[in-house]
Amino acid sequence: MMQYPKTVIQLIQSLKKLPGVGNRSAERFAFDLLAWPDQEVKDFAKSIDLLKERIKNCQECGCLMDSETCTLCNDPKRETATLCIVAQAKDIYFLEQTHEYHGLYHVLGGLLSPLEDIGPEKLRIRKLIERLQALSIQEIVLALDSTLEGDTTALYLKQELASLQLPTSRLAFGLPMGSSLDYVDGGTLARAFTGRRQF
Amino acid sequence: MMQYPKTVIQLIQSLKKLPGVGNRSAERFAFDLLAWPDQEVKDFAKSIDLLKERIKNCQECGCLMDSETCTLCNDPKRETATLCIVAQAKDIYFLEQTHEYHGLYHVLGGLLSPLEDIGPEKLRIRKLIERLQALSIQEIVLALDSTLEGDTTALYLKQELASLQLPTSRLAFGLPMGSSLDYVDGGTLARAFTGRRQF
Repeated sequence: MMQYPKTVIQLIQSLKKLPGVGNRSAERFAFDLLAWPDQEVKDFAKSIDLLKERIKNCQECGCLMDSETCTLCNDPKRETATLCIVAQAKDIYFLEQTHEYHGLYHVLGGLLSPLEDIGPEKLRIRKLIERLQALSIQEIVLALDSTLEGDTTALYLKQELASLQLPTSRLAFGLPMGSSLDYVDGGTLARAFTGRRQF
Repeated sequence: MMQYPKTVIQLIQSLKKLPGVGNRSAERFAFDLLAWPDQEVKDFAKSIDLLKERIKNCQECGCLMDSETCTLCNDPKRETATLCIVAQAKDIYFLEQTHEYHGLYHVLGGLLSPLEDIGPEKLRIRKLIERLQALSIQEIVLALDSTLEGDTTALYLKQELASLQLPTSRLAFGLPMGSSLDYVDGGTLARAFTGRRQF
């Protein structure tokens, strides 16, 4: 049986490491790349090559940055009285796309997970407390996944930050937009019921 | 609203050009790449960068190669009496994976398409006739898509190669493996009916 050329095999191996990309998709991507104009392929390779070199995490808030100064921490338009705590830097962009929040962020760098051996010391919790002492935050929003790990982390932070006596909220749980009751799982429905609001 | 760093935006733009990759998938890929070990990201970038430089098409059969000699044309184990005609170099690998065919190949480089202005002069048909005259081919297999363009190209080749008086077959049309009749479209069912075989 004839095999792919080595260069193609190596490319397929790398492509298969991307989330949700199987063998067939990786092959399709590789053959598609062969048909791209040379310059576009070069640009693609370069943007991957530069990624890890250029992108750093802000030492303060933990968000991604590709310059020396953090655009979030140094943005005079942000409201400085609210701090939103997220697990990953990418979560910031999803929240920003909602245009609902204009305050500061703090990236934990993960969620507590005894199974994966991720304890509080592996998250940026010490830095969080430092920042809360240095900044004049009036309100904390926990924007964490609605998973076991998210719940554990939220509870841990609630206890840990209790002494600061700051109003702390967590994103609402309930029905996703456009969902019908018969398609929603029991857990979501139960939380939506518990969290029902005056109408 | 906070934007992604420029390096990330450029990467997402490139990733979105891959087939079937939308904005959300491209973002997921980009953030996944940020979490890869440095060396794996470097290897990935390099394999894309080298792709177009290293991979050439064999001047004879048209398949992909990353060395000076074509492994297909120079493989003494291939049966040299049969020639399988395919549209794209990638089709060879899909056919090879079936282990059903052990002969030679000829890549046309596309399919006839008046709509996309692809006429016979844009395909490797002259080279095909040259090869058929030079090699001692006894049988031709047309392994072309079951689309309008595939049908047009198959008919054109049949006429063009008629004078050579070589037995010419085309891949069978019919029910895909594991399909049930109520899920198969009318065109496929009609072709499966016309092409029914003694049982």
